[in-house]
Amino acid sequence: MTPEQFRQHGHQLIDLIADYRQRVGEHPVMAQVEPGYLKAALPEQAPQQGEPFAAILDDVLQQVMPGLSHWQHPDFYGYFPSNGTLSSVLGDFLSTGLGVLGLSWQSSPALSELEEVTLDWLRQLLGLSPQWSGVIQDTASTSTLVALISARERSSGYALARGGLQSQDKPLIVYVSAQAHSSVDKAALLAGFGRDNIRQIPTDEHFALRPEALQAAIDQDLADGNQPCAVVATLGTTATTALDPLRGIGDIAQARGVWLHVDAAMAGSAMILPECRWMWDGIELADSLVVNAHKWLGVAFDCSLYYVRDPQHLIRVMSTNPSYLQSSVDGEVKNLRDWGIPLGRRFRALKLWFMLRSEGVEALQQRLRRDLDNARWLAEQVGAAPDWELLAPVRLQTLCLRHRPTTLDGDALDAHTRGWADRLNASGKAYVTPATLDGRWMVRVSVGALPTERADVERLWANLQAVVKAPVRG
Amino acid sequence: MTPEQFRQHGHQLIDLIADYRQRVGEHPVMAQVEPGYLKAALPEQAPQQGEPFAAILDDVLQQVMPGLSHWQHPDFYGYFPSNGTLSSVLGDFLSTGLGVLGLSWQSSPALSELEEVTLDWLRQLLGLSPQWSGVIQDTASTSTLVALISARERSSGYALARGGLQSQDKPLIVYVSAQAHSSVDKAALLAGFGRDNIRQIPTDEHFALRPEALQAAIDQDLADGNQPCAVVATLGTTATTALDPLRGIGDIAQARGVWLHVDAAMAGSAMILPECRWMWDGIELADSLVVNAHKWLGVAFDCSLYYVRDPQHLIRVMSTNPSYLQSSVDGEVKNLRDWGIPLGRRFRALKLWFMLRSEGVEALQQRLRRDLDNARWLAEQVGAAPDWELLAPVRLQTLCLRHRPTTLDGDALDAHTRGWADRLNASGKAYVTPATLDGRWMVRVSVGALPTERADVERLWANLQAVVKAPVRG
Repeated sequence: MTPEQFRQHGHQLIDLIADYRQRVGEHPVMAQVEPGYLKAALPEQAPQQGEPFAAILDDVLQQVMPGLSHWQHPDFYGYFPSNGTLSSVLGDFLSTGLGVLGLSWQSSPALSELEEVTLDWLRQLLGLSPQWSGVIQDTASTSTLVALISARERSSGYALARGGLQSQDKPLIVYVSAQAHSSVDKAALLAGFGRDNIRQIPTDEHFALRPEALQAAIDQDLADGNQPCAVVATLGTTATTALDPLRGIGDIAQARGVWLHVDAAMAGSAMILPECRWMWDGIELADSLVVNAHKWLGVAFDCSLYYVRDPQHLIRVMSTNPSYLQSSVDGEVKNLRDWGIPLGRRFRALKLWFMLRSEGVEALQQRLRRDLDNARWLAEQVGAAPDWELLAPVRLQTLCLRHRPTTLDGDALDAHTRGWADRLNASGKAYVTPATLDGRWMVRVSVGALPTERADVERLWANLQAVVKAPVRG
Repeated sequence: MTPEQFRQHGHQLIDLIADYRQRVGEHPVMAQVEPGYLKAALPEQAPQQGEPFAAILDDVLQQVMPGLSHWQHPDFYGYFPSNGTLSSVLGDFLSTGLGVLGLSWQSSPALSELEEVTLDWLRQLLGLSPQWSGVIQDTASTSTLVALISARERSSGYALARGGLQSQDKPLIVYVSAQAHSSVDKAALLAGFGRDNIRQIPTDEHFALRPEALQAAIDQDLADGNQPCAVVATLGTTATTALDPLRGIGDIAQARGVWLHVDAAMAGSAMILPECRWMWDGIELADSLVVNAHKWLGVAFDCSLYYVRDPQHLIRVMSTNPSYLQSSVDGEVKNLRDWGIPLGRRFRALKLWFMLRSEGVEALQQRLRRDLDNARWLAEQVGAAPDWELLAPVRLQTLCLRHRPTTLDGDALDAHTRGWADRLNASGKAYVTPATLDGRWMVRVSVGALPTERADVERLWANLQAVVKAPVRG
């Protein structure tokens, strides 16, 4: 494709995307297709000859589009929002269009420097002290893996330079809340700690990690001759957006020399609101933290902000310096390859920069406040309605709810809950996420997709009340 | 930004990118800026109010552009090519514009299924048997980390489900060539093996791993009571594009139950040419392999193709299954989150699909053959010129060369080499990568940027001959 063809087809694609975003609400929000639908529809081999661009766009509309679940849809309440504001989308387009790579500062200086500048802008917006240095990772999963490897190496005195984790005498222990995201367990397992060395710390009645239980677990491990290594606290757990008490946890971690990583993937976005800052009181006691700017905040996926207090430690764990990556300015610049796992890096700061400049901070704050208000409104309706219950405090924009007719309990209640959630999702009228809490099914409603306004939430509440009346499945 | 504003600004951005790609050759190929230039130019804080899009685009042109080293430039011969064909760029635009996420099949079925289909198309194009299943990772660095963790878990009988790597009795050993990419060492260190347990296997006169040296190292480890775990072979090493002999290595690995991972990040693209297939004779003996479709092949970064022979093993190592990610179709579909580290996944198959369909296989083959021809032509010029030498066989499209006047040797020759390479890069007329080989500096010229034609390579040769005549620096 020549630049002139790109110009022509690019304009077509811009219109397709603009139309899509304008009318996304007309699609069923969850894809209504069967497993294998697309595999069956596509040729078994790549074409030998190029095809007209119109044919590709036609297949996008006819074959791909029906198989999308629409995350930018006003009726999307699944998982957590993953907002791709259109200003950040344009920043990402520029990144891909330029096609430059950050292997080192020299390989595209603007890529490294804009990342440094925008991560510092975000640091200030989040209310973090200048002690923090940031870098963009793809996801919180990866950020947490980087954090736990960093913790592992601090506790072992850089065993990677010698016999590695397999030369470790005292087992290194990782502490997580029973409500932590599955990626935290996964990171600990991938980093080599082993399941036997992950302690699940009990939570309180609001699903937040109990510091005294953490303290007890650490003391027990010390008594058993183990070496406490890292604790992962969560700000905005996936099930209920619970807030682990950072100050209490941080004090314990510091006293014991344990690495504190804060998974603020979800709640971190809310820290741009001064009225929410109490949620991460104690954050300065942490060693590392992650905030997913690609969630509620609105930067097109992927843009996970990873901040550390000791960048020299991170670099010592992650750095490589082969001759073909050296340059004469290496002492004066940040080489961001040494701040994470991949060597090659996209120009991801552009999408963050485009969004911040095009929207401005106040508009971002306003949107988040809109979502907090909408979630509060819905919580009031649910709280006041007979046969409905809220299962956790609504700290942010996610509700955990259940329709509980007095006649139903136990497994029958679970069947009812899963039944209506599936019916709602299958209807295409809303996308919600069923999940378990204390061993029973409930339904998460995560408000905060970009186009979701109060009227949409009102419609959701009407749909919820209607869908639970249909007969129970199975 | 509303969809209507996006439409307007999107058209502006398409034109900016089309203009950029048309005139990229007019820029100095390597950025001519000093460290800190952009940090000094930008405000210290994010704006409170949104700014007009024109102001952002203006800053892109005035402030960002001078700080780019241009990878899509006809005079780019650095590192390895990272080609972003414009058809794949449009596929990536669609991915970002749709803003859908692959957490599970259900969260956007088309995302998972198109990845499965296009990875199978590529499998066939690369001449791999149907025994391979593929997934897109961000980079070869990450793919190799996934491979070594998989090897670690196979050798340890899934120690991650028990005491982890830290419960390992016999040290697990990883074998790599002394010419392997820095990311291989890094992956082994991050996976916890430890530097003492990485064996650097000597290479032959063409910088390829010597199977008999591998065999000897494995035997020695067995005699010492260690447990050989994994060998990483490289197809197209970074310094010289050397080809490790896969069949010999694979036979040894299979006989000893050692995991064979093949880093074909660079040379893998050439496997779409039947005449290059001899290079990976023996590939079917491997357990995992990685091909960077975002390098020479031309898919916009990032698109690293990771293939495994035993997907069930990969899934067992990587899978998580919390309630909030479960759905009723889980038994029937691939959930690609269980094929790698991140949970969230972009719709990266679109850029691969757009490129394959828009260009067609034959045009891709033609472009790669063009580059092989251009590299051969340049090798002939260098080989025939007095005072110039080629330091390694030109297997693909990368040359390792040195200007060696009879008067220079040792450190003086190194100073001369680095001097002219720096002058050439600083001139903006070409981007080449100095690197060491056998302890002495040479210059890598990696042909194969998208717009590089024979006339560009002829101009490079003239520039090379001119630049070495200037006085030696330092």
